[in-house]
Amino acid sequence: MPMESRMIDRLARIVGKDGVLRTPEDLAVYSYDGTFAEGLPEAVVLPRTTEQAAEVVKLAAEARIALVPRGMGSGLAAGSIPVAGGGIVVCFTRMNRILEIDTGNSAVRAEAGVVTSDLQAEVEKHGLFYPPDPSSIRHSTVGGNIACNAGGPRCLKYGVTGNYVLGLTVVLADGRILKTGGKPIKDVTGYNLNALFTSSEGTLGLITEALLRLVARPRCAQTALVEFVSLAHASHAVNAILAAGIVPATLELMDQTAIACIEEAMHLGLPTDVEASLIIETDGADEQTVGREIQAAGRICTESGARSVKVAQDEAERSRLWKARRSISPSLARKAPNKLGEDITVPRSAIPEVVQRLRAISSRYGLPIVIFGHAGDGNLHPNILFDRRKPEEWAKVERMVGEIFAAALALGGTLSGEHGVGVLKRPYFERALGPVSVEVQRRIKQALDPLNILNPGKMFQD
Amino acid sequence: MPMESRMIDRLARIVGKDGVLRTPEDLAVYSYDGTFAEGLPEAVVLPRTTEQAAEVVKLAAEARIALVPRGMGSGLAAGSIPVAGGGIVVCFTRMNRILEIDTGNSAVRAEAGVVTSDLQAEVEKHGLFYPPDPSSIRHSTVGGNIACNAGGPRCLKYGVTGNYVLGLTVVLADGRILKTGGKPIKDVTGYNLNALFTSSEGTLGLITEALLRLVARPRCAQTALVEFVSLAHASHAVNAILAAGIVPATLELMDQTAIACIEEAMHLGLPTDVEASLIIETDGADEQTVGREIQAAGRICTESGARSVKVAQDEAERSRLWKARRSISPSLARKAPNKLGEDITVPRSAIPEVVQRLRAISSRYGLPIVIFGHAGDGNLHPNILFDRRKPEEWAKVERMVGEIFAAALALGGTLSGEHGVGVLKRPYFERALGPVSVEVQRRIKQALDPLNILNPGKMFQD
Repeated sequence: MPMESRMIDRLARIVGKDGVLRTPEDLAVYSYDGTFAEGLPEAVVLPRTTEQAAEVVKLAAEARIALVPRGMGSGLAAGSIPVAGGGIVVCFTRMNRILEIDTGNSAVRAEAGVVTSDLQAEVEKHGLFYPPDPSSIRHSTVGGNIACNAGGPRCLKYGVTGNYVLGLTVVLADGRILKTGGKPIKDVTGYNLNALFTSSEGTLGLITEALLRLVARPRCAQTALVEFVSLAHASHAVNAILAAGIVPATLELMDQTAIACIEEAMHLGLPTDVEASLIIETDGADEQTVGREIQAAGRICTESGARSVKVAQDEAERSRLWKARRSISPSLARKAPNKLGEDITVPRSAIPEVVQRLRAISSRYGLPIVIFGHAGDGNLHPNILFDRRKPEEWAKVERMVGEIFAAALALGGTLSGEHGVGVLKRPYFERALGPVSVEVQRRIKQALDPLNILNPGKMFQD
Repeated sequence: MPMESRMIDRLARIVGKDGVLRTPEDLAVYSYDGTFAEGLPEAVVLPRTTEQAAEVVKLAAEARIALVPRGMGSGLAAGSIPVAGGGIVVCFTRMNRILEIDTGNSAVRAEAGVVTSDLQAEVEKHGLFYPPDPSSIRHSTVGGNIACNAGGPRCLKYGVTGNYVLGLTVVLADGRILKTGGKPIKDVTGYNLNALFTSSEGTLGLITEALLRLVARPRCAQTALVEFVSLAHASHAVNAILAAGIVPATLELMDQTAIACIEEAMHLGLPTDVEASLIIETDGADEQTVGREIQAAGRICTESGARSVKVAQDEAERSRLWKARRSISPSLARKAPNKLGEDITVPRSAIPEVVQRLRAISSRYGLPIVIFGHAGDGNLHPNILFDRRKPEEWAKVERMVGEIFAAALALGGTLSGEHGVGVLKRPYFERALGPVSVEVQRRIKQALDPLNILNPGKMFQD
């Protein structure tokens, strides 16, 4: 049933005529994200202020219309898509102002729709640093990163998005505006609402503004590529580095398949006869310290059985290494028409075992699984390569995903380290967390969104 | 009305006869904490397992009896006292086993009643480190620390208790057992229940067990005492150190009154003509790096106007500095019969202004306020010195506390950095957070504890 034109008029009075989209072409733009899922909204609303967003929510509550919050739509769990069809997508891309950079307190206040890399660039001009670095950084927003508690390679040393949330402005399900937190770094006055709304995937409120903690910009970095004939040795090296009290900014793992893909696409001269490579980066304020750390990490790798340790000698070499790491995803496109990237996390020590199980799944189904990810925190991205045009391959992929999650859970791991649950992991949500946890979460959802208008159908099975 | 003996029998069947206390002498032991508040429970129950705690909660839910969770009773906000009188104190001191130390994943699993310093000592034997260091560390428990999200000096570099919670075992208000989190370091599968129960002060569930993240034990530390004629210069130095990318383990501030108290009690030769001193400590894996950092921090202090920078030359000198810092609280006892220590947090840059306002409050009421605390994160402990036997002084203290909170809030600060709200800060709770935030928190409380049997009367005004 199409939305009444009276409703459209009322929305337009709130956000302006150009803030309401409803042509099929426009709606199509907001019907997908970084996954294979799709769903057409009935209207897209683009508020320019928190107050406008609040009025939209009040209207939706009155009319019992579902709201799907959205940033740049780069999500990898279908959290920002109206998968059931219908409802209003509330897209925050017009709320993209940086409101304040407070150098005295190392904090930035920004609207939800600011693109994360824009925020980073802006604070770096002031000698400050916003560490979270999801691979979507150039096409995802601060609000979306908070809603999903986005991570990234640097999160080993610096922590995930949630570790930087000092305060939020949130539109609640009844249209009231909630302000949480503030500039004080330590705050135990009441429940931790910052943490509750972070990673709630738009199901408890619409995040319109954030106050984020910053740190000093690291002045130097050193990067090493380390090759291991045995993946178990690479995993051992990761533990040994951390046990020695070295906390690199990143400890990235690439398995043999990932390295082969990069080499095939980029011809960087990477040897493809190793089971695993690590990209290790240390960073900080002091060149000598950063250098000593990368040397120490390299020594530990050698002691753990690395075949070679190459520390980038200049910026050009360093950026070549990162180019290799960043090219994994695009290079997979040369191997197969489609890929599905997962986001499991396991206890660090279980990495060798989970990689073995992933390989077994791959050979059982006859589809390649490329493995890379953030070894330091046990967060791996197994990517299944396939051809979606072949229904039998898609059917296999769906079963493989289930087995990947089962493997992670069996080893004490979980479904998602940085992407979220959204729609795609709903079927596994209760298996991962248990019925008591899911029921507690449902009660919180019910308490804060009794009409179930905020991103319904996400996280929880209906 | 005394508790029915049938109820006592049923409790004894769950926890054993020696696990139920009800003589006036026994009850008195559980009627106070680190504050001036008092309240007698009708019974004290000491479970030895999560399952026993769960059975106690079921019984209490059935009989609508209030439960007050308690560790070692060192709290500074009266959170673990049955202030309204009556109910059952559930004390976790018999659940004091360390269940697992996982060196491969740098994690420890422990029961709620383990004393924090015992846990620290145990993990350090394995080269691991549990950083949170509340001053109550030797007489507070892991469970209490989590319930209040305890901090401490080292939290500047290492983060507060909540940053180390990987997973919790919680008995819910209906006696069901909830397990949250797990060993994976990154986990965005569902709402952040770890963070919700941390700092919930026993109002949402009883924490019986925790899985805590550990880091590598720092191998060396350097400590400096820096004297500033001007407190504004000290505050500037704090910001400049952090802006330079140096993150000391601690950046502790003591004002002139605090220094004078220490000197009077300890005769350490501290000059009392400075407005402020900082104790700066750097730590880490590598002696040279740690040394370079303390030197750099010292240089920045000098540039910011420090009168003197003394780096401890050996372990004896280092421990003398810490002895001075730790002796502040006890030394206050020599100055006045009583003290009331607060726990405000302000944005770092507001420290000079808040200190000025605290001094104005002190002189207006004619009672000394000694100021010390964690300057790096803006968390200050203003201690009012007074004589409780004089009713007019106590009346002043109550008004002064209100003004201290008002000063913090006016500067963008908050009521508590590490102690919690408990009973004592209830009157200021809504003023600090606003009615929408409090209502959201009440809804969460209502959703998870509909009978209001878990630590009723804490945080929220009835």
